[in-house]
Formats: sequence, structure tokens, C-alpha cells
Amino acid sequence: MNRIITIGREFGSGGRELGKRIAEHLKIAYYDREIITEISKKTKLAEEYVQQILENKPIISFPITIGHSLYPVFNPVLENSSSIYSEQSNTLIEMAQKSDCVIIGRCADYILQDYNPLRVFVYADMEQKIKRCVDKAPKDENLSIKELKQQMQELDKNRSKYYQFITGNKWGDKKNYDLCINTTNLNIKDVAEGIAKMFL
Amino acid sequence: MNRIITIGREFGSGGRELGKRIAEHLKIAYYDREIITEISKKTKLAEEYVQQILENKPIISFPITIGHSLYPVFNPVLENSSSIYSEQSNTLIEMAQKSDCVIIGRCADYILQDYNPLRVFVYADMEQKIKRCVDKAPKDENLSIKELKQQMQELDKNRSKYYQFITGNKWGDKKNYDLCINTTNLNIKDVAEGIAKMFL
Repeated sequence: MNRIITIGREFGSGGRELGKRIAEHLKIAYYDREIITEISKKTKLAEEYVQQILENKPIISFPITIGHSLYPVFNPVLENSSSIYSEQSNTLIEMAQKSDCVIIGRCADYILQDYNPLRVFVYADMEQKIKRCVDKAPKDENLSIKELKQQMQELDKNRSKYYQFITGNKWGDKKNYDLCINTTNLNIKDVAEGIAKMFL
Repeated sequence: MNRIITIGREFGSGGRELGKRIAEHLKIAYYDREIITEISKKTKLAEEYVQQILENKPIISFPITIGHSLYPVFNPVLENSSSIYSEQSNTLIEMAQKSDCVIIGRCADYILQDYNPLRVFVYADMEQKIKRCVDKAPKDENLSIKELKQQMQELDKNRSKYYQFITGNKWGDKKNYDLCINTTNLNIKDVAEGIAKMFL
């Protein structure tokens, strides 16, 4: 069976950098944005739309309650969401079957549980995450620290809701992961080397 | 400054084994029971008594409330507890100043915060912890699984209370650690190698 590393992460914690570095060390595949592209191709839905469904409040596309019963009424958003969730699972499983790989986000820790992935969660103190975002922001971005913080919290809230919706588990709860890594005081390069070493 | 690794751990999760293996890899000092012995020597109190104060319900030795005020009344247990807590801090600081080291438990992550330790917390699923305890139990131990589980839960409850009492923080809350390691599905030998690699 191929060996899979899944990385859940708080926005701005450096989870993506960690994943990339681990994949480089191990010379294995790395999937992040590629997953959206793949689902978009399969469902023939625009990448932006797929991303919105996968990252923003999937809860809005639930069946609508009428009286005391739940009726799965016809709802194009719901129909599309179901296809997208289903294609997400298929895509992740295809990736896991293809070769060893690192997968960022997408509830891959849960969806690929039969593949015994190494389930990593990356987090950091808010101050450190803001610093990281400011350092990496495009030059023309003019968000205040307050606006940035709000945006980050909103993004993580959506990730958390989405994770709970798909898995039924609490996002970031350490019992659902094998390793939780606080990047506030750690050097991501060293951590990547360490995880690669564990994995070899 | 010397480099310190502190390891907090749930009972039966293999935190001690992980600490020992890391210390062996890095060829650095390892402190666990040695801390109790040292405090016992300094306070001239029996090791068992020191251990009881440090591991069991320090809360009972709080000043007693009279009316609406708190009076630090004379209380030999309280006096001894204060000496023990104080000697614990001194001992940990001496150890941290002496050389690179791995320290098990004793709120060392908090007490040695000025030394920027790598703060590790080790945990596992109950089933796995029970399996580990059964495998390592002395042959003449005849606890039922139910009794063992109760004992483990009681021990962790005391650790949690003690940690909260000394640090004001929640024991096992991932924000207080740099790495949280779930040993349920991991090979402790591999993890030790990985952490040693991060630390080198």
C-alpha cells in the first residue's frame, strides 16, 4: 500500500510549506490546488465554484426542512455539492492509489482512513500566523491587521465547519491526528526533515 | 543555552520510552525518577512522600478558608508542599543549566519556559494505552482491565489537576506544546529518530 501524509492546517500556520518540504525530502507527489483542478475537470464545473463549495459553508446546500420532515428537494447547488463531494473522494482515492503522496486539506485524513495515512495537523499562535501572512502577502494587498485577522478567522471557521460536516469530527482535535505541530517556535525546514525521517 | 526537550504524557502512551529513545539518539541526559530523588535529598523528605505531593492532589494542601478570608494557617503538609514545589523548580533549572537534556513530566515545559524547551505531549487511544500497560505489567499484577482503566484515568486526572495547579494552563491542550504525538498508530522508535533529527 502506498504511504500517504495528510496535512490539515490553520490558515497562516505554514502547513502548506511543511507539506511541500516533506514531499521534496521524500521525493513523493504533493497535492493541494491540483485536487480542485481535477474535480473541476471531472464535474465540468468551474474551479472557483468547486473551491467555493469545498471551502465555504457547505451547510447552505443542505436539504430544506418543510414542516417536520426533511425533503431532499431539487436544488442545483445541492446537486452540484453532492457531485463535488463525491468526486473529491474519488480523486483523493485515485491519488492515494497512484503513489506515495502528501495531501493538503480536503478532509483527506478522514476520507483516506483505509489507507492508514500519517495524519498531521499544523497550527500556530495568532500573532505568528499574522506575521507569516503579512510577510507573504502580495505587495498590492492593503488589508489592515484587524481585517487580515478577521479574514483568517473566517477561513478557519469555514474549514472547521466543513471538516465537521464531512467527518463528524472536530477539526484540530488532537485525537483525530497522529502529529500536531505548533509552528510558532519551530523551524518548518527542521520539522519537515524530522517527519521525512519518521516516514522513511 | 542548552537545549531541552520536555515530555508531558498520558499514562500508558509510551512518553517515557519516547523520551529515553530521544535521549539515547542525541546522547544527552534523561531525567525522570531522578528528579524525585534529587528533591528528596534536598528537602530531606522521603522519596515516596515527595512523589505523593507531586503526583497526587496538591489541592488538599491549599490554605484553609476561614469565614470569607484566606488565612495561610500553619499546616505541615502545606509547608512541605511549598518546599517541594520550590525545590522542584530549582532542580529542573539546575538540570537545564547543566547540559542538553530530556525531562519527563513535572510541568517542566512551563517551569523551564525561559529555556525555550521543545515541548512535547504524548497521548494515545485508551485501548492502545491499556494494551501497552498489560504488555508491560509485572507478572504478579492481577488487575482486571476495568481496574487498570480506572487506575490509569485516576493517574491522568491527578496529572491534569497538578499541571493546572502549577501552570494555570490546561494539561494536554495542544496550544501549550510544540509537538503532540499520538502513539496509537505510530512506531515510537521511528518517532524518536524523527524528533532527534529535528533537534540536531
